Amino acid sequence: MMSDSSTAPRRRGAGSREARKARRARQPQAPAFITRTLPPYALLNEESLAAIERHADRLLEEIGMEIRGDDVALDLWRNAGATIRDGVRVHVPAGLARALVQRSAPRQFTQYARNPVRNVEIGGEHTVFAPAYGSPFVSDLGRGRRYGTLEDFHNFVKLAYLSPWLHHSGGTVCEPVDAPVNKRHLDMVYAHMRYSDKPFMGSVTTAGRAADSIEMCRLLFGAPFVAEHCVILGNVNVNSPLVLDGEASRVIRTYAQAGQAPVCVPFILGGAMGPVTTAGALAQCFAEAMFCVALAQLERPGAPAILGNFLSSMSLRSGAPTFGTPEPALAYLAIGQLARRLGVPLRCGGNLCASKVADAQAASESANSLWPAFLAGANFMLHAAGWLEGGLVMSYEKFVMDVDQLGAFHTLALGIPLDENGFALSAFREIGPGKHYLGSAHTLANYESAYYDFDLADNNSFEQWSAEGCHDMLTRANAAWQSKLATYEPPPLDPAIDAGLRAYMDTRKRALPDEIA
Amino acid sequence: MMSDSSTAPRRRGAGSREARKARRARQPQAPAFITRTLPPYALLNEESLAAIERHADRLLEEIGMEIRGDDVALDLWRNAGATIRDGVRVHVPAGLARALVQRSAPRQFTQYARNPVRNVEIGGEHTVFAPAYGSPFVSDLGRGRRYGTLEDFHNFVKLAYLSPWLHHSGGTVCEPVDAPVNKRHLDMVYAHMRYSDKPFMGSVTTAGRAADSIEMCRLLFGAPFVAEHCVILGNVNVNSPLVLDGEASRVIRTYAQAGQAPVCVPFILGGAMGPVTTAGALAQCFAEAMFCVALAQLERPGAPAILGNFLSSMSLRSGAPTFGTPEPALAYLAIGQLARRLGVPLRCGGNLCASKVADAQAASESANSLWPAFLAGANFMLHAAGWLEGGLVMSYEKFVMDVDQLGAFHTLALGIPLDENGFALSAFREIGPGKHYLGSAHTLANYESAYYDFDLADNNSFEQWSAEGCHDMLTRANAAWQSKLATYEPPPLDPAIDAGLRAYMDTRKRALPDEIA
Repeated sequence: MMSDSSTAPRRRGAGSREARKARRARQPQAPAFITRTLPPYALLNEESLAAIERHADRLLEEIGMEIRGDDVALDLWRNAGATIRDGVRVHVPAGLARALVQRSAPRQFTQYARNPVRNVEIGGEHTVFAPAYGSPFVSDLGRGRRYGTLEDFHNFVKLAYLSPWLHHSGGTVCEPVDAPVNKRHLDMVYAHMRYSDKPFMGSVTTAGRAADSIEMCRLLFGAPFVAEHCVILGNVNVNSPLVLDGEASRVIRTYAQAGQAPVCVPFILGGAMGPVTTAGALAQCFAEAMFCVALAQLERPGAPAILGNFLSSMSLRSGAPTFGTPEPALAYLAIGQLARRLGVPLRCGGNLCASKVADAQAASESANSLWPAFLAGANFMLHAAGWLEGGLVMSYEKFVMDVDQLGAFHTLALGIPLDENGFALSAFREIGPGKHYLGSAHTLANYESAYYDFDLADNNSFEQWSAEGCHDMLTRANAAWQSKLATYEPPPLDPAIDAGLRAYMDTRKRALPDEIA
Repeated sequence: MMSDSSTAPRRRGAGSREARKARRARQPQAPAFITRTLPPYALLNEESLAAIERHADRLLEEIGMEIRGDDVALDLWRNAGATIRDGVRVHVPAGLARALVQRSAPRQFTQYARNPVRNVEIGGEHTVFAPAYGSPFVSDLGRGRRYGTLEDFHNFVKLAYLSPWLHHSGGTVCEPVDAPVNKRHLDMVYAHMRYSDKPFMGSVTTAGRAADSIEMCRLLFGAPFVAEHCVILGNVNVNSPLVLDGEASRVIRTYAQAGQAPVCVPFILGGAMGPVTTAGALAQCFAEAMFCVALAQLERPGAPAILGNFLSSMSLRSGAPTFGTPEPALAYLAIGQLARRLGVPLRCGGNLCASKVADAQAASESANSLWPAFLAGANFMLHAAGWLEGGLVMSYEKFVMDVDQLGAFHTLALGIPLDENGFALSAFREIGPGKHYLGSAHTLANYESAYYDFDLADNNSFEQWSAEGCHDMLTRANAAWQSKLATYEPPPLDPAIDAGLRAYMDTRKRALPDEIA
């Protein structure tokens, strides 16, 4: 994975395998996470941001947020100063949720990986890319669209491990539908631990499965380490609008209690789980997420947490969710500013699309989601690779296409180097007007590292492209993921730890009858 | 073209033809041009921008810019205070080019169309989208890739006229290769005048053809009007690096002399026509364009002009130009800031791509070009629709796909309305937690205008999409442009003016022997 430019051959023919290998080595180093020098985009002024915050406060105070079936969480809020009505509705005095968050939630934290060079910083100027999450289906050109299996799950963990531009192994990279619904979390967490050494996410479907996920981390990292360090994230969806069911609130508390990081994600399909207007959905989303991060702080002050959001628009023609539209893009940009003012890491965006196939629709929609999320300063980007069909499908081809795009954002994040080499005065002096720069010393010195070169793009002539079979990007992506996957070798894992993890899984699996969803 | 919501039916079934027609009517109004409330992106700080400006000044002063074969232009520069060496090399004292531009070039100007509701504002917070320019080939799914003809040219003028999201008819929308090379400019200008009523561009291949283009404008608009108003743009490529050939400089002067607007476009393929590093190519590009805008001011102080740029990266594998890469994106963002500091309208970006087919590669690359150009605050965006294969091909399918994306940027430009309706407090009060907003009064009042809905996106279920034949976006785009073109009706044109234009063309064509390129 790490580049090794010292052993790479010098320039040979530009098209040769050696040259290509050399180029790989000279591509921008693949860091464990992105550190942006690119400033975040400033969409709204202070006054507008304050207006959204006031509206969010008003929603929490006047409308309130329900917690259904978790008396401990209700007590935590009551003791913090909220008013509980009808046994479920938490009315939070304006400013209280913000104060609770700002009192103890970290602005930035490290998620530790079992391989320390894979540790990621979440928050601040950092961005971490993770694969798509939660699709029941998978697809590839050869086998078509089908339910996901444990084998597919393993494949996507391996592909994410192999990708230099994904920093994180993700969580439910697809649903392994062939495993019992109440046991598959064990297989999933084990797969992330065994087949990758990047950081990962645990189960959130019940508090017990969250506890299993954390327990397995104690076996992998050692319990004392886990007590002091964040080693796992749990992605918890709010039951928008304005409801947190007891299972979700217990999962948030389970992660927080163990010092692990819940990702608190309002899930708002505009017009269904919230208003159709962007300002309203945005304020609701911010209010819900802030409420959940505050709950994590009430459970354990100082627990890491991530402010999430998932905002989608709707097609007027079908009522279906739509992606890559401008309204969520604007909301992303605003919520980035709100998260920084609040001082909590932000989950936002991804390569989202509604298309059924990895075509131009998929690519446009994904770019329209990735660009604003990145410029918003998203710190943790789930769904950054593989997402198709509104999240119903994890696509092998889309996965490698998305990863290729993520690579470009590593370069974008660096901005423009304005140093002597960048300004190239020596080249202008050498070449002057009217001649070409191909042979200049400056070009030769910078050529191989000058430009990001997409792996999957075909920039050849029409004639050459035709002679090679007129393959479109989808076809090329199909070949690419297969050849990539064929190179997989597992990272080493201490056999004693591996045995401990397997024993834990076996015990837990034997203790429970199989459940089918 | 204009929406007519007063006569549109009220809501019916969401999928019905009436509902769809109503939706069309409620889509964001298609204005004659975009006025952004979205602030431009601030990539660089003052210090960095000043450093680039100093470097550009240094290139103009120390390296100099050649004008080859236009003594009038050399005299203009000499009289302005530049030093001419070797009879061609213009050394411009630092700050002079900027001072000349800032003394008289308009920050913003109106380009008038023959239909006054189509007039566009170029500069300031405005963005004008124009079709792609200059491709020798055209392609569509049915007939494949082939040389462009006058019939194709007419088709693209008609499609641009029919599109609510293109504000401009463009110029050489494709090369009509079936017309003699020295006469086709007459046919092209006439086509823009006859088949559209949007603003357009004239010929730049020779000063004589530029003069013909302007003369035809005098016939269309009346000579007194043309003397006082900008009615035509001429897109002039600089012969980068740092050369302006005599023909190009005369074309710039011809447009400026008539009070019409040259678009001054350095054409820099990094590593070939400039250094491979972004800072150097950016400074060179800025220097060359500023030099040309200053020349226009020397020819006629106050002449409108546009600061252009065309920056591309290069594939290390093939040496071919690449598009949608992060380096030009960063340069766009910087040059937007530089253009605002200089105070001249900016041409930038487009839906650029290298792909041979309108697939995911084309869409990703195009979005990676459109996003930064738009956020850079580009005022005039050539190549906004149809561009394929590095500009060698004008694609019918890509054209309608791009236009669909441009529509979304109209919504993006408006930002987030933070008014009472936007915040939707009434909806939260009506619905509260845990219920859906589909039937709320606020949703019903806002539903049809809430979200941009891509024309070509398929958001249906997998099952429905499969039942309809699994069409990808390329296939749907093929059907879309054909059905769109079938609806074309020409805008009215005074028969006397039409006859005058035809007579002028006939006279000019008879005066010259046919030339083949």
